[in-house]
Amino acid sequence: MKIQEKKEPGFPAAVRQQIRQGIITTPTSGMCPGHAQANLVVLPEKYAYDFLLFAQRNAKACPILEVSDTGSRILKKIAPGADIATDIPKYRIYENGILKEECTEVSSFWREDLVSFLIGCSFSFESELIEAGIEMRHNTEKCNVPMYKTNIACEPAGVFHGNMVVSMRPIPQEQVVKAVTVTAAVPRVHGAPVHIGNPAAIGIRDLTSPDFGDAVTIKDGEVPVFWACGVTPQAAVMDSKPDFCMTHAPGHMLITDIKNVALRE
Amino acid sequence: MKIQEKKEPGFPAAVRQQIRQGIITTPTSGMCPGHAQANLVVLPEKYAYDFLLFAQRNAKACPILEVSDTGSRILKKIAPGADIATDIPKYRIYENGILKEECTEVSSFWREDLVSFLIGCSFSFESELIEAGIEMRHNTEKCNVPMYKTNIACEPAGVFHGNMVVSMRPIPQEQVVKAVTVTAAVPRVHGAPVHIGNPAAIGIRDLTSPDFGDAVTIKDGEVPVFWACGVTPQAAVMDSKPDFCMTHAPGHMLITDIKNVALRE
Repeated sequence: MKIQEKKEPGFPAAVRQQIRQGIITTPTSGMCPGHAQANLVVLPEKYAYDFLLFAQRNAKACPILEVSDTGSRILKKIAPGADIATDIPKYRIYENGILKEECTEVSSFWREDLVSFLIGCSFSFESELIEAGIEMRHNTEKCNVPMYKTNIACEPAGVFHGNMVVSMRPIPQEQVVKAVTVTAAVPRVHGAPVHIGNPAAIGIRDLTSPDFGDAVTIKDGEVPVFWACGVTPQAAVMDSKPDFCMTHAPGHMLITDIKNVALRE
Repeated sequence: MKIQEKKEPGFPAAVRQQIRQGIITTPTSGMCPGHAQANLVVLPEKYAYDFLLFAQRNAKACPILEVSDTGSRILKKIAPGADIATDIPKYRIYENGILKEECTEVSSFWREDLVSFLIGCSFSFESELIEAGIEMRHNTEKCNVPMYKTNIACEPAGVFHGNMVVSMRPIPQEQVVKAVTVTAAVPRVHGAPVHIGNPAAIGIRDLTSPDFGDAVTIKDGEVPVFWACGVTPQAAVMDSKPDFCMTHAPGHMLITDIKNVALRE
């Protein structure tokens, strides 16, 4: 596939163009390696302050990469010129917290009072971990990363509240310190782990039954390590049932022009 | 002075109590060493989203440590139980961008629509630099740190816009790398420098004429190093002339319960 070969500057823009034209409608995992991908939450302006404050108060789970101007579909910073309504392969439309529709572009749903929040994604820190020589088990097992609801309460803000959702990666004992330092260096994509080793301590009963994604093998000598997950803000939004909300469909992310390395502080 | 001797837990709360009682009305520099101090901006709710977005878009200059709930005078996180209206030694009241009053408490100005923003302060990273063996020239010369308006435009948000204000510290050439790494580790209090070495490159014509604070000596073999400054959001707020705004008076900060070391990522 041509996409996987080209890596020159402008590459993400070319891929977004193919997404805009409906040529690509698949999950974006592995596309434009080295470039950050982002979660999307679109809300009416009346919810924007509460959501931005929720993100500020829970920055590990909700690292904001860009907020659009109200009503604007065009991004300026992480993917200049990208059209929020067309440049993501698949979207979800929610009304009062209920999923109404999944579609490949949302131009007909656009309104002048919408604000778009682009949120850092663990794909970025995974690429850093892989470069550091750490295996991502869910990649090896060709499935989604396992995600779990925890008993760690997010700090509420206005109408938004909920518990933190975490993703889990089994890490060999001798690589745990490296996994911490590598991810601590990228706070804009969730940063250092929130917990190491004891699922019960954060309210997770059974690692073999994740709340989202798929269970993965944990081998002898490996430790389960938990990172704040970008599903947290989506879960909080769904819980609070705003009358209208749009998000990306799981795994179908915005591909940005930002290199993962540029997210290091 | 008793304040300088006591360092046990609860120490900042005791000092805030003396501030609340009007016993302390002086600048807070050097009080409760090791504890972070914070800038204050209080705005009516109608400006809160724009200001929070301005801070999010210009996080190096405006690192938010806490945002109060609308109408609440009580902090929950960085100084639990602190009363925003009484626990800072000196306040400034602005109307339409014009300074109206300076006073030691603002209870009578409080309104149910006010939101308080507490913003990280360079006192915290200076304490880290001093611990790393780097002289703070403005301390040695017993004056304020020199601050300069730059030609670096902040990313605007709603009604708020303006250029970045920076503080400058002369650093011996052989300590510049250390000054970068030490401050890069504390992104919640401005983080790494924004520029090293050439004032003209960021629009500063004359280091001997700072826009705020006092000029300091730059010795042979020293390099001027520039950090984003917490005066930036205040300058942006003053420029946009909101009908009402309160801030701390310069140098009269909120003393928090947070240790500077806890601000390291």
